[in-house]
Amino acid sequence: MTIRTEDGVRFDEMQRDLFTGVLSDVLDSLGYRDQAMVATIRPVVPRFTVVGRAHTVLSSDIYDMPDDPYGMEIAAVDAIQPNDVVVAATNHSVRTCFWGELLSTAATMRGGRGAIIEGYTRDVHKIEEMGFPVFTTGMRPVDSAGRGMVVSFGKPIECGGVLVRPGDIVFGDVDGIVVIPKAIETEVIALARAKIASENKMRDQLLTGRSLRDVYDEFGIL
Amino acid sequence: MTIRTEDGVRFDEMQRDLFTGVLSDVLDSLGYRDQAMVATIRPVVPRFTVVGRAHTVLSSDIYDMPDDPYGMEIAAVDAIQPNDVVVAATNHSVRTCFWGELLSTAATMRGGRGAIIEGYTRDVHKIEEMGFPVFTTGMRPVDSAGRGMVVSFGKPIECGGVLVRPGDIVFGDVDGIVVIPKAIETEVIALARAKIASENKMRDQLLTGRSLRDVYDEFGIL
Amino acid sequence: MTIRTEDGVRFDEMQRDLFTGVLSDVLDSLGYRDQAMVATIRPVVPRFTVVGRAHTVLSSDIYDMPDDPYGMEIAAVDAIQPNDVVVAATNHSVRTCFWGELLSTAATMRGGRGAIIEGYTRDVHKIEEMGFPVFTTGMRPVDSAGRGMVVSFGKPIECGGVLVRPGDIVFGDVDGIVVIPKAIETEVIALARAKIASENKMRDQLLTGRSLRDVYDEFGIL
Amino acid sequence: MTIRTEDGVRFDEMQRDLFTGVLSDVLDSLGYRDQAMVATIRPVVPRFTVVGRAHTVLSSDIYDMPDDPYGMEIAAVDAIQPNDVVVAATNHSVRTCFWGELLSTAATMRGGRGAIIEGYTRDVHKIEEMGFPVFTTGMRPVDSAGRGMVVSFGKPIECGGVLVRPGDIVFGDVDGIVVIPKAIETEVIALARAKIASENKMRDQLLTGRSLRDVYDEFGIL
Amino acid sequence: MTIRTEDGVRFDEMQRDLFTGVLSDVLDSLGYRDQAMVATIRPVVPRFTVVGRAHTVLSSDIYDMPDDPYGMEIAAVDAIQPNDVVVAATNHSVRTCFWGELLSTAATMRGGRGAIIEGYTRDVHKIEEMGFPVFTTGMRPVDSAGRGMVVSFGKPIECGGVLVRPGDIVFGDVDGIVVIPKAIETEVIALARAKIASENKMRDQLLTGRSLRDVYDEFGIL
Amino acid sequence: MTIRTEDGVRFDEMQRDLFTGVLSDVLDSLGYRDQAMVATIRPVVPRFTVVGRAHTVLSSDIYDMPDDPYGMEIAAVDAIQPNDVVVAATNHSVRTCFWGELLSTAATMRGGRGAIIEGYTRDVHKIEEMGFPVFTTGMRPVDSAGRGMVVSFGKPIECGGVLVRPGDIVFGDVDGIVVIPKAIETEVIALARAKIASENKMRDQLLTGRSLRDVYDEFGIL
Repeated sequence: MTIRTEDGVRFDEMQRDLFTGVLSDVLDSLGYRDQAMVATIRPVVPRFTVVGRAHTVLSSDIYDMPDDPYGMEIAAVDAIQPNDVVVAATNHSVRTCFWGELLSTAATMRGGRGAIIEGYTRDVHKIEEMGFPVFTTGMRPVDSAGRGMVVSFGKPIECGGVLVRPGDIVFGDVDGIVVIPKAIETEVIALARAKIASENKMRDQLLTGRSLRDVYDEFGIL
Repeated sequence: MTIRTEDGVRFDEMQRDLFTGVLSDVLDSLGYRDQAMVATIRPVVPRFTVVGRAHTVLSSDIYDMPDDPYGMEIAAVDAIQPNDVVVAATNHSVRTCFWGELLSTAATMRGGRGAIIEGYTRDVHKIEEMGFPVFTTGMRPVDSAGRGMVVSFGKPIECGGVLVRPGDIVFGDVDGIVVIPKAIETEVIALARAKIASENKMRDQLLTGRSLRDVYDEFGIL
Repeated sequence: MTIRTEDGVRFDEMQRDLFTGVLSDVLDSLGYRDQAMVATIRPVVPRFTVVGRAHTVLSSDIYDMPDDPYGMEIAAVDAIQPNDVVVAATNHSVRTCFWGELLSTAATMRGGRGAIIEGYTRDVHKIEEMGFPVFTTGMRPVDSAGRGMVVSFGKPIECGGVLVRPGDIVFGDVDGIVVIPKAIETEVIALARAKIASENKMRDQLLTGRSLRDVYDEFGIL
Repeated sequence: MTIRTEDGVRFDEMQRDLFTGVLSDVLDSLGYRDQAMVATIRPVVPRFTVVGRAHTVLSSDIYDMPDDPYGMEIAAVDAIQPNDVVVAATNHSVRTCFWGELLSTAATMRGGRGAIIEGYTRDVHKIEEMGFPVFTTGMRPVDSAGRGMVVSFGKPIECGGVLVRPGDIVFGDVDGIVVIPKAIETEVIALARAKIASENKMRDQLLTGRSLRDVYDEFGIL
Repeated sequence: MTIRTEDGVRFDEMQRDLFTGVLSDVLDSLGYRDQAMVATIRPVVPRFTVVGRAHTVLSSDIYDMPDDPYGMEIAAVDAIQPNDVVVAATNHSVRTCFWGELLSTAATMRGGRGAIIEGYTRDVHKIEEMGFPVFTTGMRPVDSAGRGMVVSFGKPIECGGVLVRPGDIVFGDVDGIVVIPKAIETEVIALARAKIASENKMRDQLLTGRSLRDVYDEFGIL
Repeated sequence: MTIRTEDGVRFDEMQRDLFTGVLSDVLDSLGYRDQAMVATIRPVVPRFTVVGRAHTVLSSDIYDMPDDPYGMEIAAVDAIQPNDVVVAATNHSVRTCFWGELLSTAATMRGGRGAIIEGYTRDVHKIEEMGFPVFTTGMRPVDSAGRGMVVSFGKPIECGGVLVRPGDIVFGDVDGIVVIPKAIETEVIALARAKIASENKMRDQLLTGRSLRDVYDEFGIL
């Protein structure tokens, strides 16, 4: 499979070089201080990192079996574009399971880079084997048919307490998940690369035994 | 130690071949849609899988030291039969710790296959070394004496939101825990084996790049 | 860096030989029954163990940027003494992130042995590489500036539901965290070593297949 | 306005004579033991009582403004039949407000008898003046447009932890809310009337000073 | 019925003259700083005040019907002594309902002064008519048979986060509930009467328009 | 006492004529959609209404007794200006009690119009008698000394999930609490008065029996 994309962002390089902490600090410095999701959405494997453009999905719990239980869900997954990351909100469901192995397989084949689910996932071991980075609030082994229903996709949603617009860059790692609004993405990425260099210097100074006060007074960051 | 059992179910094969997702789907298909426990009971080690017959235990928090603090608990553990899995509800205690290494050792010697605790566990590293699959809501290093008291065992209980009757098959893995009522266990196991084959075919089709819509229309499962 | 300390306690030996379960049992036996923290403060890596003297810190959420956002925090970290473990309460913040890699580096250089945070941590992978044992309620990638502010350090605090006085020994492992009041620390450590020996004998007896009732009647512990 | 209805149930008499406690006991005696909603749905005024046939509505939180923000909600309200009680589930929303004065007015004009909302309500004082019995999980003064969207009505839903089918009788008072499945409603109402008589006799006996043991042994109820 | 009691405490006078705020302040001044229950146990009617000696009861959720579903509960109620207040912990049950009208009637006839339930209550309107002061965490209209079972009474329990020993004085009003250990009850009552006088003077001074700083500097209390 | 103020807003008229629902709708219409606090801050008496300018206070839980336990709190209260409403955040404390009768008295004497506390209150009956409108998350009868400490006042805070800047108008009634940013207050008040008129007309139309669809199509509001 070849993923063709004209997106100017080099997601593989971002995934290799950056991390959520530095991105959050840069977003703070630009006045975007509400871009980190809540702490309850976790990678299914600690080493997972994900970055890409948000493909938003919203689902609701349901309590009867619809005529076409998977209709909107299938449409949402088939609409995944290369470099997309599925970002799903489920009304904080503790009833249904939104994501699993087959959807991960289908998403991978469309060029999807991962999934961030404020909701549950199943087939964790197979997802781990695939290396498809899924972030989730927990696991439950149930199918969604008759338990949850996609009500929209491709619309702004709130996920993990952050407003996510389709096309925003989302970045997740072991420390959490940040959302980078489209309008400032170039600036954020450049500033993040610069800040990593400063942090490395500061760490080196701390390792000489200087007090935190001294080093902070020199570098001005923490 | 030799475990003798006339139970017709081959638990080792179940443990090797099946998983909670397919069992939940089969239970759904038979109209048993409330058989998966809540997402907060987790294996102490992600690779743990457990299957066996439920040996139910119920405990209550207490706040003074009884004359015989472990009496009912010891009786409950000594009553474990080969192929049993301890399934314990603690009134959602965040005070006491219900399970630990010594109980795991005693359970193993009686032929117990594991433990599912809606409550806390300690001695996690030793339990991991033993390979005794414990599922739990968390860890706390305290003894139960004067903190919790077994009030009954061998009675129907609710654990993880599911009614569990003594002798029901319980199956747990990284995706969660399902309860298979005794009356339908043969049918469930047979159907689960068949469904796994279908899922494998569906995955193969997705891996050719076909849309989820196409593949679902052909296989009718997700 | 050389850590000089006249502290009579051999923390490295404690860390190697003891564990929270036995310490909690000994504290119980001395009538100190509220010394185990709640189950939600977890090691960032399961194999982490920490022991040392509590260096207490208290922070509050804030909602504007102070003139000196890190002032008290830097002072708190620069006040770390050899063998200290940072024990921080954040008013159960789900907003700020209290701890991270640079603070771990600074703490290490002062002789700190670890950190127990009722609050969030970031830079988990780097902390894991450093081997600096951090216990935390979760991860969030945000900086504390304008989100949280240290309001005092070196005062008694409640962390994980336990009153911790500066200088108390804190011990954390995969099963949780216990606090050993200064006045009884020598006795607790000695009794814990003795109890481990008894437990080993009891386990051996269980492994012969004797019932839990029999073995408990002989050893009197569980 | 004249409400015409061929419904054989005399709801005004039920509302005057019965109460949730006795209905729940009768449902228990018939083996229907999961018919009482959770304790968090409360009458907006303690003296409110409601009874009627469930008109079910389901809504989901949303995060952008739809083209027709009230479309399904208006359809749901205009579909109210005489003797209906709106029973709404909102995916446990703490974001939107589902019910208010204008909807109460519209519902009253269609012959609706009240509303049971697992979600928020506004205009509480005006609703109190109208005497339209609303049960709710709380108050929040926000409009639903762009915050919540009706996704279906007239389907089975779970509300307050109980499965409610359209047409089931729902009964709410200061002690909570019970759901009476359609198939057994006649029997439940008759048995409830009989049980009230027994309870009155038992109370009279207790008021003579007899022990609870004695009186229970005679009457066999509590 | 005549209630005979040799108890030296004049509970009716306490109920008329004192309130929880002043009792809590006096307990603080004597070093008893953990005597106020959590805020979630509320009077069923805001004007209710209760005071008397704790008659402790502990119950556990259950999930099957015992042979004698009310046995221990009846024994616990029949054991109520004059001036007792039932103080019940239910393992924080959200399943069963622990208290109701018939138990209130039986308790009144034994000389009971009220009930403080960390658990649910039903028959609220009748309890209000009786004027029997019940404090509770909520209402649910279900019977306890097969849902909850008394496991002990007359033992120390934790209720609302406070250790309550049988015979301790408990005092509840609209502001909450405090527990007065037996050993210091005489001193607490005397000091509370004195403190009320000081507060009245301080209020008078504030009403002259003096600053809080001035008045506090003079009276030394707040 | 004479309250002199040059504030152009007529708070008494606002309090008499407006309500939170209409203010929230107007704020929505101007694009300010996050101005309503969470539903857990309630008036201590349902009939209470409050409006005025936010005087913000922030406190932290503490666990030891400071030298000057009330210092900052007294300063915060003595800084109240005429037409102020105390708006306090306590880090969601369930430990301390932030407000009470004496502070209400002192606040009244400074010209304060009420208090909105994301935290606990005591002396509810006396506050009710005074008619000083307090909104709170609950009641607990404990003093703040050694339990909570004011860490700042007059700074922007988050209260009930809304950013509140000193001087913003806050308005609370039985339906909840809204925050009106200073820059748009004149516009909001004028638009709210106009919207009330429209709502009255719509209600009149609904009372003629017209369908909600018809009336909405004509008025365009709900």
